[in-house]
Amino acid sequence: MKERAYNFSAGPSMLPEAVIKDVADNLLNYHECGESVMEMSHRSAEFKQILADAEANLRDIMNIPDNYKVLFIQGGGTLQFAMVPLNLAVNSRKIDFVLTGNWAKKAYKEAVKMGYDAKVIASSEDDTFTWIPEITKDDIRPDADYVHICFNNTIYGTHFPYIPDTGDIPLVADMSSCILSEEIDVTKFGMIWAGVQKNVAPSGVAVVIVREDLIGKAAADIPTYLDYQIHADNDSAYNTPNTFSIYVSGEVFKYLKANGGVAAMHEKNVRKAKKLYDYIDGSGYYKCPVREKDRSLMNVVFVIGDKDVEKKFVAEAKAAGLHNLGGHRSIGGMRASIYNAMPEAGVDALIEFMKKFADENK
Amino acid sequence: MKERAYNFSAGPSMLPEAVIKDVADNLLNYHECGESVMEMSHRSAEFKQILADAEANLRDIMNIPDNYKVLFIQGGGTLQFAMVPLNLAVNSRKIDFVLTGNWAKKAYKEAVKMGYDAKVIASSEDDTFTWIPEITKDDIRPDADYVHICFNNTIYGTHFPYIPDTGDIPLVADMSSCILSEEIDVTKFGMIWAGVQKNVAPSGVAVVIVREDLIGKAAADIPTYLDYQIHADNDSAYNTPNTFSIYVSGEVFKYLKANGGVAAMHEKNVRKAKKLYDYIDGSGYYKCPVREKDRSLMNVVFVIGDKDVEKKFVAEAKAAGLHNLGGHRSIGGMRASIYNAMPEAGVDALIEFMKKFADENK
Repeated sequence: MKERAYNFSAGPSMLPEAVIKDVADNLLNYHECGESVMEMSHRSAEFKQILADAEANLRDIMNIPDNYKVLFIQGGGTLQFAMVPLNLAVNSRKIDFVLTGNWAKKAYKEAVKMGYDAKVIASSEDDTFTWIPEITKDDIRPDADYVHICFNNTIYGTHFPYIPDTGDIPLVADMSSCILSEEIDVTKFGMIWAGVQKNVAPSGVAVVIVREDLIGKAAADIPTYLDYQIHADNDSAYNTPNTFSIYVSGEVFKYLKANGGVAAMHEKNVRKAKKLYDYIDGSGYYKCPVREKDRSLMNVVFVIGDKDVEKKFVAEAKAAGLHNLGGHRSIGGMRASIYNAMPEAGVDALIEFMKKFADENK
Repeated sequence: MKERAYNFSAGPSMLPEAVIKDVADNLLNYHECGESVMEMSHRSAEFKQILADAEANLRDIMNIPDNYKVLFIQGGGTLQFAMVPLNLAVNSRKIDFVLTGNWAKKAYKEAVKMGYDAKVIASSEDDTFTWIPEITKDDIRPDADYVHICFNNTIYGTHFPYIPDTGDIPLVADMSSCILSEEIDVTKFGMIWAGVQKNVAPSGVAVVIVREDLIGKAAADIPTYLDYQIHADNDSAYNTPNTFSIYVSGEVFKYLKANGGVAAMHEKNVRKAKKLYDYIDGSGYYKCPVREKDRSLMNVVFVIGDKDVEKKFVAEAKAAGLHNLGGHRSIGGMRASIYNAMPEAGVDALIEFMKKFADENK
């Protein structure tokens, strides 16, 4: 059997091999209960336990306070872009956005589309989003319903080096590409949400962590599925949730817990990213366009500067078992997404390949 | 290893064992491509092929005409209850509903909640939904945007024995619990949708089959994710879809195709259901409350008439490897969901158990 590749995809992306093997071993007959998890009623005692454990373990590894609800919702980030305003922008309907990349912009555009009073309070778009703006309380409208940020920007390889102080105004952060990669003080946020398909599990679930006093205020005529309170009141099982992705998410939470938790992941992530950035910066061949203090630990963006050579890089890397190193279709270049599940050996292999490629193509 | 049970769950429910085994075998390294399907970028060539094949095979086995779009959308039936009105009730905002059970009622209530002019044109609620009303063109408001029916009623064990003639007014059918169980003339419907978690695959995807002239008319301010046209224009990958459930759906479509298609499934389903209904009707102990011509091939509902004995039945059946035979929490009694993937041997085993239980508890 051909070996598994190092998969640098921005998402869906690598999962811990031990988790995949365990899922495969249990796929036909989950812990000898007679059923596959794929076949399990979401109302069964077995699945309720899987769901409860997933939530409990996530609360544990993220240190989520009791006054925050943890929800598992379908529809990905795109649906969250609509759900957050519908649930949280219910007073002034004013939302302040920090534009740091495509996903931040999509969140902003969705609010505009839906008729909210959306304001861009800071943006690095003029510099192709290569840095993170610093915002202070003074930048925020005093009657804004919330401030939205994208904490880690998958496409541009940036990451907020600080948590904005928004005072009494709730801060909402899209952490799709960095959740569980570093310790986060949840209490600094009104809400955190993340699609699981980058750093956690197969696609089809967004984890929503929301302070309970912020929900339950949505208009009566919105679609039932879009009301966080409905999900909260029904422990994420108002209707059939994405049972399989919740199950694998739970397995990953357990795996992280057993392997030093988020702190250990962060240490490893810092080490992996530093290695790669150090090599790039010193290579004299590759270049990372991102301002140093705003660089992401998860998505390492770099360029050679010649589109044809970059194409060659991506193709030869794939042939060498280093998959999905092309940059996002909107900016080109290269991107190595090195989420929690990317082994350090994968980063080493990438650097070796980069050295060889640089030598051959200088 | 303990044997696999016969799982009579209403959904999620059994999958073909051959498909589960194949998915398990390929879980770590999908056809030696170096990645698990769970880790595959939805923009990769490999996944695009999986998605295209799933659609093509579904079109083939259901004989779906080219002027119908096939979409794979997250959020289940609950989100469809909102999406259908948002996309199709865009002229008069009038929707006519036939109430044949909980899910039909939920669709109706969602339309009411969202401010549509929803009308119940027929209902069997007064008889606990034990039969299917016959509707004709005269029952329908001439300016209704569409008529909504639930073709098979999971909870009450009924099934439309006919396709209502709605003339020029589009007929929308929720086929969550009977899709692919019988041959259907798609052209009789404006739209068919089905959550895949009953008769197809793990939960988290609704398949939407919609006549292309009916979409693209939604209001500009609705959430992007709720617009069918967005999904159609982007081949169900506007954002990251539920890749794993789409993959397993595709494997099941292939499996059906290789095993005689929907016609062969239907033949087997008729045989299984007939066996079970015949036994119930002749047992003198169990009773099926559903009018004979409206009985579902998928969900066989029956009662003993004594709640304690029924509880005992469900518990003893579980111990005997016959899982999830309890009726829906809203009506009690028993329900055997015998979808495509339930082997005939499972029905035989159930009947044997029922005989033994009747003898012991008469």
